[in-house]
Amino acid sequence: MSVTDELLANAEQYAATFDKGDLPLPPGKHVAIVACMDARLNPYGLLGLSEGDAHVIRNAGGVITADERRSLAISQRLLGTKEIILIHHTDCGMLTFTDDSFKASIQEETGQKPDWSAEAFSDLDEDVRQSLQRIAADPFIPVKDSVRGFVYEVETGRLREVKN
Amino acid sequence: MSVTDELLANAEQYAATFDKGDLPLPPGKHVAIVACMDARLNPYGLLGLSEGDAHVIRNAGGVITADERRSLAISQRLLGTKEIILIHHTDCGMLTFTDDSFKASIQEETGQKPDWSAEAFSDLDEDVRQSLQRIAADPFIPVKDSVRGFVYEVETGRLREVKN
Repeated sequence: MSVTDELLANAEQYAATFDKGDLPLPPGKHVAIVACMDARLNPYGLLGLSEGDAHVIRNAGGVITADERRSLAISQRLLGTKEIILIHHTDCGMLTFTDDSFKASIQEETGQKPDWSAEAFSDLDEDVRQSLQRIAADPFIPVKDSVRGFVYEVETGRLREVKN
Repeated sequence: MSVTDELLANAEQYAATFDKGDLPLPPGKHVAIVACMDARLNPYGLLGLSEGDAHVIRNAGGVITADERRSLAISQRLLGTKEIILIHHTDCGMLTFTDDSFKASIQEETGQKPDWSAEAFSDLDEDVRQSLQRIAADPFIPVKDSVRGFVYEVETGRLREVKN
């Protein structure tokens, strides 16, 4: 039995007691979260989110790239969110390599060099600030009154704000 | 009090009873989920995931773009995931507009046309298949034995598989 099959069995249980079929499309709390994909970071548990509350956007590092700018533009322009919360975290995989070394290793194995930036970083707080600045500089995200960045400490469960 | 402040108060409660400080960096279930950012789709509740289990990657639509390919390459190559689960959902915001109309409205307001594809779609199952095909075609994601795509039904809580 694959992990996917195991998770599908969980999904059947979820559907069996499901009672949230009438939630509206726009997020009830008008907030979008951008967080790292890390397995230890659970935005629902951490922020007390339930179904219907918030857009949740995630990738390797929780960094702002073109796809996060696209998602945030859609979130605000079409679905009415007004606040943005960015979450990076301690012990992040992105701290363990460099773009050059990762791309060189892929090139060695596949013969091709990736055409994307891996977005690795060496300073956690500075990378949160970089993501805040990328949002500040984006011309297509309209609402920037509340854009705040945080580091989640996987060791303690605490969320620490990073000042821009 | 902003919504962000309200969620930060929840985060303090989470930290107060936190007991998961020793989880390893690689996901315990060796799986990466790619899902839409939609507020009604809670991958933790739906799939029975806990802290430490899975990478969770999300964006507007749950579509595969360059940033998801980057995240999946990092997930598999550096952190050992071996299965991929894609989740789109019914009543998706991406079904309500076209790339052309959305980008034209932004150009009208800001004077600039976005340099990204909005990734809107008109056929839900076909867009899941498109995402499956984008992964199949990617040269940098090494493990493709278990890549499966699903539609989550926000009306019923059920997960339905889309065959490629």
